[in-house]
Amino acid sequence: MTSDQASAEERATAPGVTDVTPVPLAQVSSFDHEVDVLVVGAGCAGAAAAMEAAAAGAEVVVLERASGPGGSSAQSGGELYLGGGTAVQRACGFEDDADNMFAYLRAALGPHVDEEKLRLYCDGSVEHFEWFRSCGVNFQESLYDAPTWMPFTQDGLMWLGENAWPYNELARPVPRGHRPATKGWAGHTVMEALMGACREGGASVHTDTRARSLVVDDGGRVVGVVARRFGSQVTYRARRGVVLTTGGFVDNDEMLTDHAPVLLGHGKVSDGLDDGSGIQMAAALGAATRRMGFVEAAYTAVPAMVCRGMLVNGLGQRFINEDVYPGLFSHAALHQPGPCWVLLDEQGLESVPDGDEMGVRPTYAAETLEELEEELGLPTGSLGRTVAAYNEHAATGTDPLFHKDARWLRVLEGPWAAVDPRLGFFAEGSTGGGGTGFQGFTLGGLSTTVDGEVRSVTGSLVAGLYAAGRASSGIHGEGYVSGTSLGDGTFFGRRAGRAAAAARA
Amino acid sequence: MTSDQASAEERATAPGVTDVTPVPLAQVSSFDHEVDVLVVGAGCAGAAAAMEAAAAGAEVVVLERASGPGGSSAQSGGELYLGGGTAVQRACGFEDDADNMFAYLRAALGPHVDEEKLRLYCDGSVEHFEWFRSCGVNFQESLYDAPTWMPFTQDGLMWLGENAWPYNELARPVPRGHRPATKGWAGHTVMEALMGACREGGASVHTDTRARSLVVDDGGRVVGVVARRFGSQVTYRARRGVVLTTGGFVDNDEMLTDHAPVLLGHGKVSDGLDDGSGIQMAAALGAATRRMGFVEAAYTAVPAMVCRGMLVNGLGQRFINEDVYPGLFSHAALHQPGPCWVLLDEQGLESVPDGDEMGVRPTYAAETLEELEEELGLPTGSLGRTVAAYNEHAATGTDPLFHKDARWLRVLEGPWAAVDPRLGFFAEGSTGGGGTGFQGFTLGGLSTTVDGEVRSVTGSLVAGLYAAGRASSGIHGEGYVSGTSLGDGTFFGRRAGRAAAAARA
Repeated sequence: MTSDQASAEERATAPGVTDVTPVPLAQVSSFDHEVDVLVVGAGCAGAAAAMEAAAAGAEVVVLERASGPGGSSAQSGGELYLGGGTAVQRACGFEDDADNMFAYLRAALGPHVDEEKLRLYCDGSVEHFEWFRSCGVNFQESLYDAPTWMPFTQDGLMWLGENAWPYNELARPVPRGHRPATKGWAGHTVMEALMGACREGGASVHTDTRARSLVVDDGGRVVGVVARRFGSQVTYRARRGVVLTTGGFVDNDEMLTDHAPVLLGHGKVSDGLDDGSGIQMAAALGAATRRMGFVEAAYTAVPAMVCRGMLVNGLGQRFINEDVYPGLFSHAALHQPGPCWVLLDEQGLESVPDGDEMGVRPTYAAETLEELEEELGLPTGSLGRTVAAYNEHAATGTDPLFHKDARWLRVLEGPWAAVDPRLGFFAEGSTGGGGTGFQGFTLGGLSTTVDGEVRSVTGSLVAGLYAAGRASSGIHGEGYVSGTSLGDGTFFGRRAGRAAAAARA
Repeated sequence: MTSDQASAEERATAPGVTDVTPVPLAQVSSFDHEVDVLVVGAGCAGAAAAMEAAAAGAEVVVLERASGPGGSSAQSGGELYLGGGTAVQRACGFEDDADNMFAYLRAALGPHVDEEKLRLYCDGSVEHFEWFRSCGVNFQESLYDAPTWMPFTQDGLMWLGENAWPYNELARPVPRGHRPATKGWAGHTVMEALMGACREGGASVHTDTRARSLVVDDGGRVVGVVARRFGSQVTYRARRGVVLTTGGFVDNDEMLTDHAPVLLGHGKVSDGLDDGSGIQMAAALGAATRRMGFVEAAYTAVPAMVCRGMLVNGLGQRFINEDVYPGLFSHAALHQPGPCWVLLDEQGLESVPDGDEMGVRPTYAAETLEELEEELGLPTGSLGRTVAAYNEHAATGTDPLFHKDARWLRVLEGPWAAVDPRLGFFAEGSTGGGGTGFQGFTLGGLSTTVDGEVRSVTGSLVAGLYAAGRASSGIHGEGYVSGTSLGDGTFFGRRAGRAAAAARA
């Protein structure tokens, strides 16, 4: 539909070109492969879609541009946000239900969650947990009970903000962060299980194969994909549907500039290939996008330190209860006059359990708050006022400003230490979020129905086209908690796979 | 390009249907009108585009869905952000240049302004000012010298944040808010002049005519528009180009939900017809959009009160220097834990000049800050601490936290008053911003070149299609100051009109 009318062949073979112009079916003389359901991208959403489509009897191929499957999912922490009464929750002594889960996520992922998707996600969560187990993901039935980005234990359950104010008043606090029995980063564990189950279910994976354009018939229906493998064009016909599970666009600076410039200059949480190509291929066809500016931005402050001290902004003010899930203090920090600092006293610093300090040592130390203000470049008297107010209430076990739990309240006394989160975790800034302390990824993408059908800007659907995972806009509003990306990616990936398999051939 | 293949006729005549599916040229048997340049929407950008296209010798028609021209532009305050050394600036004793103007706007409209557009906008600003005068917009050569949304005088020049920290350190402070010689809301004055000049220049306006879909030839070029007038279809052939100046989408709740949910529930600054139809018509064709989530959201607090007291958030904390342009404290307020309150003492309240109080009286009064905290539901001691810190520094004429200018600093003493901005201006909540205190409009739209050419998602251009004003993404980053919408709408509207007139027929 544009003035650029180069042939599919020319475009698919030109190196470096990222032209996503749809290719008319008439321009494809013959297809190299023909399947029922073609899935584009072998991350968590793609694996889930392929598995369900294959289970429904469809012939399925998954295209993956990297040399192996996994995508950004495999490089994630591996948290899965699941609840409503899973076996792990019950074994740890927690009662949960779908309504309670919905109440928490509506607030924590909000404002403006997708209530239709979130309702289904909560209602189906116990079944979805069992699906993970059936794929071979195992969970230890024990709780890690302190604020953290990721426990360096094999505990299968963790809090993701449910027990912190104001969420503890909006829903009954129950932990829902499920983690496979792996120490540290566990995304690869999840993806190995899902890809194994996927292959066992009969889906094939074509690696090193990069989808370039959608093939469209005269009626506007998506009927295939033109891809590229080692410099050659490969064409795929999809009899029932194409499912785009290509991920977000944090690795595409042009798209970030256009849609989510707030992430420019920050670190990227991805496998380096989240270039938004699936979103663009569909948008070139008039597909509708949704919330392209919504992002997750994690602030690399150490939760075990934050909850024992305080987080102050560039004016020396507190701005949130420090025991909240770190994904939530991160979003708050993003809107503060920065940089934000972690302030601790000696006793707090020494009480951080081994390992939980994530390799981080204080950047600044001082006998008095006045000295620390000067070292950090904070307004004179600002830390003094903030700490005085904090201590006045901590002495009585309360935090009327932000309602931090009494477990983490204590009168703070010098000597003082401050951590600069811009230096990142694990010393020497090795996970430093691009020097800003923030590292993120995108949440916006194609507008889809609960069955993954891609909506057109015109209000109808783009026939033959489905999407899930971060190529689509999921359950999220403006907030974020860990586990909801692998969570909604797999949950709605499964639905998209089933819907595509059931479509007319 | 979708599965919906209803005929153009069916779609154009179906009542209530907002199908924006492009119409293939082959489906249009004959055109009711044929022109060189067709402009869709008679607001400031449309008037500017039509005028320049006509001046270049093109035959021009402007479609307007309302019964008269003007659009949201006519209902605006009428501020024009212009500088670089205009006659009004010089007469008021201010020296300015394009670099200085650029330095301020890059910060105030940022982060993430469109530097290419902004550079042209600043470099061309003196000429653009003279263009307004040549259209019959007159400016009184006098300065209104205090923070305000809009002076209720005929002063032709006002500050729009240039003299407030941190902007006064980033660029030499020079006022650039230009206002036509009209008391109060002046958008209609600007639009009467522009539409007069437009008609004089030979452009015709077809009112009551609502564009529904773009007409596209086999090569993907936009060659016309299918419109609807009083229930009947009217077709327009555009030999050289179609310029979309249809405005933003604040009046389309579905689009807000998808792209800018932050505005949901707030008041709308528009003529009620900013439904995003132009953006959707183009996006259905694969046109790229940009920054669809960026918004202006004005907080209905009275600047003359705010600068004499303080603005505190729902925790009783200050968060910005109160003498900044209100558009800038508004954006800050949007991200604060709310509601935010205006806090004043009796002396401050009594010193507000008549008229500048905008009809607003304090909502709460109290002898002590403790009483006021209780009345407002603020944490005990919060206002006490905030005011103590403020007064400590105000006594020495400084504001180390936020750098409010010494002119507005004074030790505050009871009795106290607080204003609830949610009640709006002019008493009884008549301009109340939907009860939230915020009222806004959208800044995101089609991705365009500096000549208004609409970009395709594929990276090429959509041939024959142009856009300007709030149907496009303009000079703005995440910030906003008044006068930049009429400003960049007319500036880039003119460029789009010239480019369309010069296109091949």
